[in-house]
Amino acid sequence: MAQAENRLANGAARIDFQTSPDRYRHWKLAVDGEIATLSLDVDENAGLFEGYQLKLNSYDLGVDIELADAVRRLRFEHPQVKAVVLRSAKNRVFCAGANIRMLAGASHAHKVNFCKFTNETRNGIEDASETSGIRFVCAINGTAAGGGYELALAADHIVLVDDGSSAVALPELPLLAVLPGTGGLTRVTDKRKVRRDLADVFCTIEEGVKGRRAVEWRLVDAVVPQTKLEAVALDKAREFAKASSRAPADRGIVLPPLKRQFDVSGVTYGKVSVVIDRAQRTATITVAGPDASPPVNVDAFVQAGADNWVLQAALELDDALLHLRNNEFEIGTLIFKTVGDLEMLGAHNRFLGENRQHWLVHEVTQLWKSVLKRIDVTSRSLVALIEPGSCFAGALAEIALACDRSYMLIGQREGDNRPPAAIMLSGGNFGSFPMSNGITRLQARFLADPAQVEKLAAEKGRRIEAEEAEALGLITFARDDIDWNDEVRLFIEERTSYSPDALTGMEANLRFAGPETTESKIFARLTAWQNWIFQRPNAVGEAGALRRYGSGQKAAFDMKRV
Amino acid sequence: MAQAENRLANGAARIDFQTSPDRYRHWKLAVDGEIATLSLDVDENAGLFEGYQLKLNSYDLGVDIELADAVRRLRFEHPQVKAVVLRSAKNRVFCAGANIRMLAGASHAHKVNFCKFTNETRNGIEDASETSGIRFVCAINGTAAGGGYELALAADHIVLVDDGSSAVALPELPLLAVLPGTGGLTRVTDKRKVRRDLADVFCTIEEGVKGRRAVEWRLVDAVVPQTKLEAVALDKAREFAKASSRAPADRGIVLPPLKRQFDVSGVTYGKVSVVIDRAQRTATITVAGPDASPPVNVDAFVQAGADNWVLQAALELDDALLHLRNNEFEIGTLIFKTVGDLEMLGAHNRFLGENRQHWLVHEVTQLWKSVLKRIDVTSRSLVALIEPGSCFAGALAEIALACDRSYMLIGQREGDNRPPAAIMLSGGNFGSFPMSNGITRLQARFLADPAQVEKLAAEKGRRIEAEEAEALGLITFARDDIDWNDEVRLFIEERTSYSPDALTGMEANLRFAGPETTESKIFARLTAWQNWIFQRPNAVGEAGALRRYGSGQKAAFDMKRV
Repeated sequence: MAQAENRLANGAARIDFQTSPDRYRHWKLAVDGEIATLSLDVDENAGLFEGYQLKLNSYDLGVDIELADAVRRLRFEHPQVKAVVLRSAKNRVFCAGANIRMLAGASHAHKVNFCKFTNETRNGIEDASETSGIRFVCAINGTAAGGGYELALAADHIVLVDDGSSAVALPELPLLAVLPGTGGLTRVTDKRKVRRDLADVFCTIEEGVKGRRAVEWRLVDAVVPQTKLEAVALDKAREFAKASSRAPADRGIVLPPLKRQFDVSGVTYGKVSVVIDRAQRTATITVAGPDASPPVNVDAFVQAGADNWVLQAALELDDALLHLRNNEFEIGTLIFKTVGDLEMLGAHNRFLGENRQHWLVHEVTQLWKSVLKRIDVTSRSLVALIEPGSCFAGALAEIALACDRSYMLIGQREGDNRPPAAIMLSGGNFGSFPMSNGITRLQARFLADPAQVEKLAAEKGRRIEAEEAEALGLITFARDDIDWNDEVRLFIEERTSYSPDALTGMEANLRFAGPETTESKIFARLTAWQNWIFQRPNAVGEAGALRRYGSGQKAAFDMKRV
Repeated sequence: MAQAENRLANGAARIDFQTSPDRYRHWKLAVDGEIATLSLDVDENAGLFEGYQLKLNSYDLGVDIELADAVRRLRFEHPQVKAVVLRSAKNRVFCAGANIRMLAGASHAHKVNFCKFTNETRNGIEDASETSGIRFVCAINGTAAGGGYELALAADHIVLVDDGSSAVALPELPLLAVLPGTGGLTRVTDKRKVRRDLADVFCTIEEGVKGRRAVEWRLVDAVVPQTKLEAVALDKAREFAKASSRAPADRGIVLPPLKRQFDVSGVTYGKVSVVIDRAQRTATITVAGPDASPPVNVDAFVQAGADNWVLQAALELDDALLHLRNNEFEIGTLIFKTVGDLEMLGAHNRFLGENRQHWLVHEVTQLWKSVLKRIDVTSRSLVALIEPGSCFAGALAEIALACDRSYMLIGQREGDNRPPAAIMLSGGNFGSFPMSNGITRLQARFLADPAQVEKLAAEKGRRIEAEEAEALGLITFARDDIDWNDEVRLFIEERTSYSPDALTGMEANLRFAGPETTESKIFARLTAWQNWIFQRPNAVGEAGALRRYGSGQKAAFDMKRV
């Protein structure tokens, strides 16, 4: 099996999730009043790794990093945009999906994390539509295959050219012996509600489904002649824009490049630092709270833009998580710490709560929601260490709630006269940051006792110290200074001694008690099946379909059904 | 990796799912009025395969086959039983879970299907409680580890001895680098609603949790001194029995051994036949409809007992499915056919509908429900061929709805003057046979258009021929005699050429659109993660934890997180 990592192109040292429209190689973002156009025009020679060309608008992680960036900028930099046309800039080709050569050469870990990020990006498109009223129209001018169709599935409306050859397809099973990697099966059955037997037929037709049948089977919303595609898509976008619920805004804010310093032991941002202990296989992520009072009003908030603590910290934390996920596979445990003034952070949280109708406050809150969701589906053990000097409040308290465990120090440390650690809940913890399964982390935590969530709602804005936090069920363990070091050390040593795979499976299950949504089904059920299939010799073995694709040799399968 | 199948003990040719209490080697079933006792007393020398001993009440598939049989008999043979005490007959040992030597030596296919069956058995316990008012009390007199605790989790009430050593545990992760195989993680978080971080701690403590802490963490319902265990469990069972909703019944019916004939090309039962085509890798399962009118009344129904068509066909079909799943791994496609008088089957369905309050009618309906659920989670491609002479009505129509696809012949065949094929819906199709996700197959099928289900409800009892069935969305394809043979042959050839793993993953996703329940989360999410982990070298490789357990050598892990 291909477990050796491909080599990054141009001698890059790491996969970088930072980009901006002026550096895009594959997407073009154009904004015209309320309508934006996102055009896919993949530069086949600008792959993220060496060894493949991105033909036919096929993509790799680098292409998706640009898409995620563009969607984020639409939310912050272009608040007037209410609808987006997703299209291809190539003639008679929409998108051939994830590049097969890239997949065939990628390690299992890269494949899985590539799919995770593309899923998050598709979810981000749906979230922009659902929570910010930015609706997406996908105009398909050729074949949308595999990940290409999965991209379309993230849109609110899909228009397909009816020219006898343009089609939508999920050919992964017949062609590659794997599953569509970016939510395709779940979105077909649960979002577009394609009848299950028709979905079965669809997923076995390599060349896909076209014309009227694609509409009848609910795979697309409309088919139009080639000549009318752009106009019809634009009309639909205008219709969406007219009905959009997006909050009014005069002007956006700019998302400048993050200031970062990488070195052997981690990354340092302005508000976030990552310190890696390679012997211990941990990364300690410390988020610093605000060091100034909240803005005096929303105008000042807009004025400060990306300099606002709440936005800066979210963007930096997001980048840190993506870096660790995709560049540091051997780091098994993420230790979350915070440092700062709890009361001051509480004041920021109150500012956000009081101004939650404002477009930028809304977008910042949605960004935190997405960062927290990214934590939830990060396949690393997560632990929060809550110590004197920390500021676990609001979204930062939510980080602790997202962790597999939390340890909180009782009282003061010898020689440290800072007050004892405390955590503080805000209104945000009761609904601003739902998990992918639609419930809050507090609701998931107290599934057995929903009344406890109501009880905690009365504690908003109050300092809750360790023993009380333990009694309230907000943390896992409260420990005093005498036991702290040994207990935390033992936990980390033990944790990092376990099989990483078993931990990944266990955590993916324990983190998501309760209901399911299309999104959680994609991450939970579908992803797990994909991971399984991505390991099977029938896909990735020497004679597997993914390895042999394009070689002229037919794949050879072990025909045992498991 | 250990892919070679273990050898069955005593030269057995196949795994046999037929047993009866007089043949049990591992369980004892005692009935005393309204209370039954199921005692686990594993005969360590009576393993299903060669090469291991079932020490400490550990189990293999053979042990679970007896448990499933006992639960079924409680429903049919002992209708007066309203509560069951699940206990161990061994001193200070409850159950050590699935036997590790057995797992280490088993093929991936056997491991996965073993877990599937044990899951179905636990679900069967919960179903007996939920739908028939047979409540289960689990009395734990020592350590209930892994599958032992998962067995307890299926009960309505768990009592644990408080003696300083008795404990409940899910030690799979720290000990074996795999996940609990029988719903443990999901039942801990979703059924018992253990707080997620406490569940995380619990699942990493090899020796488990005991005493008060087990109650506080919601892992068990009560702890009692050793001397009081039996009495407390019995009291709770009596309390359950008193409140039970089980329908009154004078006497049960006997489930005699199935009459079966195995040969190289399949199995022949009274109402069901299985014909295997090894070159094609298909099994054609034909269910014959009733050849006599329904019983005149419920007394006659009870009198006929297991000779009733509706019961006989369900038991035979269930056995056939289990045989194919566990003994015929290379048979990738199951072709379902029926033969019989549609109107007569319709009359039987009306009899069942009219008498659905009767205890035996109820149990037979629940049995069909469980057989149909077994079809849903069978990892083989499923196709229904609906031809002249067939009788797809009621539960048999439900088989067609459970299939990945259905083909229906239009009109008559040349030289065959039987009337054209028709299908017939009955009341049962609208609620008697919910899937594991809580909705009917018709609801899952018409997720996009719930009104279509209501429309179909008006068509109960009517013959629906091919073209109309296609127009109503009840079948996938209606084809005439000219196209039929080629189309069906091509479908089967194509299907059996695909990667079995990719098909398994695709079907597991497409079959379950819509909501999720604890049960569906176990089969969907948890099972997929298990399958993945059961493939990972960290578990099953030469240096993996499952292989090295008990060898004195420590497992060596690839520490990359995926």
